[in-house]
Amino acid sequence: MTAAALIDRLNREPPDGFVATLKDIFEHSPWVAMQAAAGRPFADLESLHSAMVVAMLQAPQAAQLALLNAHPDLAGKEAEAGSLTAHSTSEQDSVGLTRLTPDEKARIVDLNAAYRKRHGFPFIICVRLRSKRQILAEFERRLNRETVAEFMTGLIEVGKIARLRLDALAQD
Amino acid sequence: MTAAALIDRLNREPPDGFVATLKDIFEHSPWVAMQAAAGRPFADLESLHSAMVVAMLQAPQAAQLALLNAHPDLAGKEAEAGSLTAHSTSEQDSVGLTRLTPDEKARIVDLNAAYRKRHGFPFIICVRLRSKRQILAEFERRLNRETVAEFMTGLIEVGKIARLRLDALAQD
Repeated sequence: MTAAALIDRLNREPPDGFVATLKDIFEHSPWVAMQAAAGRPFADLESLHSAMVVAMLQAPQAAQLALLNAHPDLAGKEAEAGSLTAHSTSEQDSVGLTRLTPDEKARIVDLNAAYRKRHGFPFIICVRLRSKRQILAEFERRLNRETVAEFMTGLIEVGKIARLRLDALAQD
Repeated sequence: MTAAALIDRLNREPPDGFVATLKDIFEHSPWVAMQAAAGRPFADLESLHSAMVVAMLQAPQAAQLALLNAHPDLAGKEAEAGSLTAHSTSEQDSVGLTRLTPDEKARIVDLNAAYRKRHGFPFIICVRLRSKRQILAEFERRLNRETVAEFMTGLIEVGKIARLRLDALAQD
């Protein structure tokens, strides 16, 4: 499907179908698509994406926190158990997070635990836009940032992930 | 310059130099770079960008409104007078907004006026990611949206513009 065909279909679908098509663009959080449905018709995927990000940013803080917490740990237990969403599997695979050396693996386990302990939600980063080295450097840098900034950074990264997921959906 | 060379330079510069290099990534708003400087060193441009977007979203509403109002009208008087920033000139040129038919020009003049009257700030859209047809369709759609959603949509589009400006800076 092309991006133009996808946005055309999304603009014509009943709200239920629109939400079903977009339910995993924001991890386990169909409410983002539900909010954005009212803004149709969108001229392009970029505009749909902006509307979904706005819906996310205008949501109550509890819903935003639940969205962050709907994300898996980087190279975590869900990845090992094969229980990630198809999107997350493909994303973590793309940058080698499913093929770590034992040292890298141990470092990420420690970082995941320290980040969750300090901030209260998982470390979220758009892995497709970075190398494994850059992801690890950002993980260490962001671990020590203020939680209020990390909360917002997590949401912005979720938005970047969502943009690439829309592209992937158009290419299905 | 490569993206890696640019981020390396930005990480090493004194805060003044960092802000001077990035002052126009957010239109006429060096305070965004100033806020982001404290987060260094960034692993990549993507992470610098996320930090700048977070600084923008955490700023007081009056500063956010001033940022929106620092943007020129699409194909407006500043474009005609040649007084746009270099970034804006190149952006509006890229999609043909500097070469409009008289009908298109009249339609955009009307839309600019109606949008500013209804919402209190200019219509902002990342033109490089769209065609002229898509931009006009979004302009008409967004004119009728709620101002609170448009305010946030303007900020999100400013963030998308900033991402492409960082890439352009790396290619200078």
